[in-house]
Amino acid sequence: MKSNPTYLLNAWYVAALSTEVGPEALFHRTILDTSVLMYRKQDGTPVALHNRCPHRFAPLHLGTRHGDEVACRYHALQFDCSGKCTKNPHGNGHIPQAAQVRQFPLVERFGFLWIWMAEEQPDYERLPDFGPLDEGHPNGIGYTYMHMPVNYELIIDNVMDLSHIDHVHGEIISTRGKLSPVVPKVQELDRAIVARWEWKQTPAMMIFANFLSQPREEADHYFNITWTPPANIQLSVGAVQGEKSFDECIGQYDLHTTTPESQFSTHYFFATRRNHNEEDGEYNAIKIKAMHQAFEDEDGPIIRAVQDEMGTSEFFELDPVLMSNDVAPVKVRRLLKRLIDDEARTNDS
Amino acid sequence: MKSNPTYLLNAWYVAALSTEVGPEALFHRTILDTSVLMYRKQDGTPVALHNRCPHRFAPLHLGTRHGDEVACRYHALQFDCSGKCTKNPHGNGHIPQAAQVRQFPLVERFGFLWIWMAEEQPDYERLPDFGPLDEGHPNGIGYTYMHMPVNYELIIDNVMDLSHIDHVHGEIISTRGKLSPVVPKVQELDRAIVARWEWKQTPAMMIFANFLSQPREEADHYFNITWTPPANIQLSVGAVQGEKSFDECIGQYDLHTTTPESQFSTHYFFATRRNHNEEDGEYNAIKIKAMHQAFEDEDGPIIRAVQDEMGTSEFFELDPVLMSNDVAPVKVRRLLKRLIDDEARTNDS
Amino acid sequence: MKSNPTYLLNAWYVAALSTEVGPEALFHRTILDTSVLMYRKQDGTPVALHNRCPHRFAPLHLGTRHGDEVACRYHALQFDCSGKCTKNPHGNGHIPQAAQVRQFPLVERFGFLWIWMAEEQPDYERLPDFGPLDEGHPNGIGYTYMHMPVNYELIIDNVMDLSHIDHVHGEIISTRGKLSPVVPKVQELDRAIVARWEWKQTPAMMIFANFLSQPREEADHYFNITWTPPANIQLSVGAVQGEKSFDECIGQYDLHTTTPESQFSTHYFFATRRNHNEEDGEYNAIKIKAMHQAFEDEDGPIIRAVQDEMGTSEFFELDPVLMSNDVAPVKVRRLLKRLIDDEARTNDS
Repeated sequence: MKSNPTYLLNAWYVAALSTEVGPEALFHRTILDTSVLMYRKQDGTPVALHNRCPHRFAPLHLGTRHGDEVACRYHALQFDCSGKCTKNPHGNGHIPQAAQVRQFPLVERFGFLWIWMAEEQPDYERLPDFGPLDEGHPNGIGYTYMHMPVNYELIIDNVMDLSHIDHVHGEIISTRGKLSPVVPKVQELDRAIVARWEWKQTPAMMIFANFLSQPREEADHYFNITWTPPANIQLSVGAVQGEKSFDECIGQYDLHTTTPESQFSTHYFFATRRNHNEEDGEYNAIKIKAMHQAFEDEDGPIIRAVQDEMGTSEFFELDPVLMSNDVAPVKVRRLLKRLIDDEARTNDS
Repeated sequence: MKSNPTYLLNAWYVAALSTEVGPEALFHRTILDTSVLMYRKQDGTPVALHNRCPHRFAPLHLGTRHGDEVACRYHALQFDCSGKCTKNPHGNGHIPQAAQVRQFPLVERFGFLWIWMAEEQPDYERLPDFGPLDEGHPNGIGYTYMHMPVNYELIIDNVMDLSHIDHVHGEIISTRGKLSPVVPKVQELDRAIVARWEWKQTPAMMIFANFLSQPREEADHYFNITWTPPANIQLSVGAVQGEKSFDECIGQYDLHTTTPESQFSTHYFFATRRNHNEEDGEYNAIKIKAMHQAFEDEDGPIIRAVQDEMGTSEFFELDPVLMSNDVAPVKVRRLLKRLIDDEARTNDS
Repeated sequence: MKSNPTYLLNAWYVAALSTEVGPEALFHRTILDTSVLMYRKQDGTPVALHNRCPHRFAPLHLGTRHGDEVACRYHALQFDCSGKCTKNPHGNGHIPQAAQVRQFPLVERFGFLWIWMAEEQPDYERLPDFGPLDEGHPNGIGYTYMHMPVNYELIIDNVMDLSHIDHVHGEIISTRGKLSPVVPKVQELDRAIVARWEWKQTPAMMIFANFLSQPREEADHYFNITWTPPANIQLSVGAVQGEKSFDECIGQYDLHTTTPESQFSTHYFFATRRNHNEEDGEYNAIKIKAMHQAFEDEDGPIIRAVQDEMGTSEFFELDPVLMSNDVAPVKVRRLLKRLIDDEARTNDS
């Protein structure tokens, strides 16, 4: 039993898709068990505050905006975007020193809002770089969000071990049984785990075949996935034919990233940038919708069933039988645990 | 965390509106975590019994009435209105001594049924006096009941600090910003907390304006609220114009009273008696319906959101920022806690 | 509070009706808090496995059948009906020794699948004998299944004390008040509790009256019920007129048996074999449907209300008032507890 849920705190989590927080919105989402208010200043800059009035604990997203400030719905205390109380309509209007809402560092990059939940000063060096998401035609990238009632590590496990895809998913990303026998090359870096598969299949994965010169012929494929803390998985996949290198592939650059809502529920964010048919907006919409449905309808039921079966037990406590395809996800679990433990030790000393 | 929910026990709580318990009904409601059966004897006198057959624990409200007695639905043990078993249809009909249902003292007054949940003898001196509810035309008073999934003290907080009304409610009871700046006079008595606001506004509160001689002109207003244990808040509000005293106001005499169902759910009862347009039954129906909707749709969502945000934490444990408008509700919380602690000490010694 | 729910483990529980597990099905049900997969081999033999892949804990019922084997939906590990892993499509195909699913002994008899949940070797001597269910025309027997959100012992209590029937049920099985005054003869055997009632009523129970020679006249009736561990109650009931013995009665031979899903939810299985109008399939269908409805609509609401009222308390902890009609159910509770305690002691030593 996880009695004390622990998360890696000195880290940047995705709090929202950029598009989820509209110009007028008081958007809220629970992140690492804490309710967070997000909104955009009039100049568009996003801000994040603890979604709790310090007076009587009403959530601020029920309130109203006044320019860049937010007034609580209950007694109209007003706060600026640093969380400082600027107005108390009661009595003589005195503002107690303690009338301060916690502000969370929030950075907008690559189509996501990244939040820093630790008490410690934010470490901007740790902001991840997913620059390729920003490069290319706007119709060449899609984003989506899913809520999953499972522990976030089960989603990381799912993506870190791609051997499931022929068994869980349908025709369009099938490797025709060629992926499972491949033992991925796994590298453990200081703060990253990388896994790479390469294989041949005939025809190519259906998502790529029609963009290759010989759609019905054999193609070389690769998957390259890189986990970085706390919960980002950058996945590249592509196919080439003939003597070309993977640098010339038909492929895509994806980001899977998860943010714990609580111990057993997770925000799952996804972005996919492709290097072909980039200007086709209709194709783009169909593609992101299909990927969203695959996560929801194919991975989702299995991962939820795994969570139900595990109950509140820890993964290793249940003695999983591990195989060659588990090397990458297990290395992620161990590295993440080491980082969390290190953080706890630092805080204790 | 409230690990041991404690209520003030030597006290009278409202168990039901008089109208909720019809002549034939076996009405049941959970009060302070205990399921209570209420019904009326053939002469109309209401009675309250533990809603649990002592044989196999079936709730008695599933049973049937036999004159002033109630038979359990499961095995037909029959109980009189003192809770004594009067009939056992099984075997030789012997009635075990222990076949006794607990009876709760229950008194009907002011349109409510008041219950005494303590093991100790009821203290009839502590029955509150809300006599003005009984005085006047029957079309001059309205009653309503609401179930709220929150701790009852959050509802007391809401009523004891009326500074919320301009921010939470709509036009009809707006003070046009005049109430918030007023610091109420708060008096702490032996077993009561009183708060009083007086202010001027133009025009008067809309619920009163049309009954004043000059509906569009300035009027003097007052609120006077008196909390008494365990959870009664008597609220008087009125408006006058010219040199008149508040004794001559257009106003109303209300009772807000809450009864914990459990630690995090509450029965909220309300009565309002007005001193104007008393005979107008249609106006009366519209008015109580509007007030019910205001509690449900305006206070309700905020108080529920506060409870969600607080989770199972105690109010003071979360370090609320307190202001001049919090004096009355905080005094109530402290006095109530002192009374509960005193009671616990008495029981320990 | 039952902090450690304990069940009798060295015992055969009904896991399913035979008809619930079709030839192609991957049927699953939680039994004693454990998810169990049941399916039939191609020769019809039923098998039961732990419904959990030992790799990443996906429930196997989401998977696919391959002849007598089952492949996990997540990563396609394949298991034979003994639970042995026979195929690993990943890497070099090596199958870890630990890749073994627990198999549960499962026996099909009397229209039910009986499961052995203990770690110990199954004791086939303890398989109960309800042979009369198998004797007679196929239209003379009906089966049904109900899910009840209550502790299973509350259902045993209900059946062991038939004095409730005139109070809970409608006309068709009414004894017209004659059953309640009868004190049943109760016998305590080594691993069984038997209770027997005999009485006269006019007319006979409606389910039997029309099959007797004088439908409107008095008839002798009996109930004979035998509880055997863990949770089987065999109930015989019949009516005769004149000088006939009960061997010549119009009657039926029923089995009520319950299997805990968890501490507070239960699988309730029922079979009824009658000795009259045996070939009438339409009558048979109406009869089993009526009995199902009686359990669901008449016993069900009361037993659920009892569970709600008891919360998580143990029955005896609440000091039930016991009467002559409680002898049989109380003896069952005590004997069952003794058997569970004996089992725990054996395991400790």
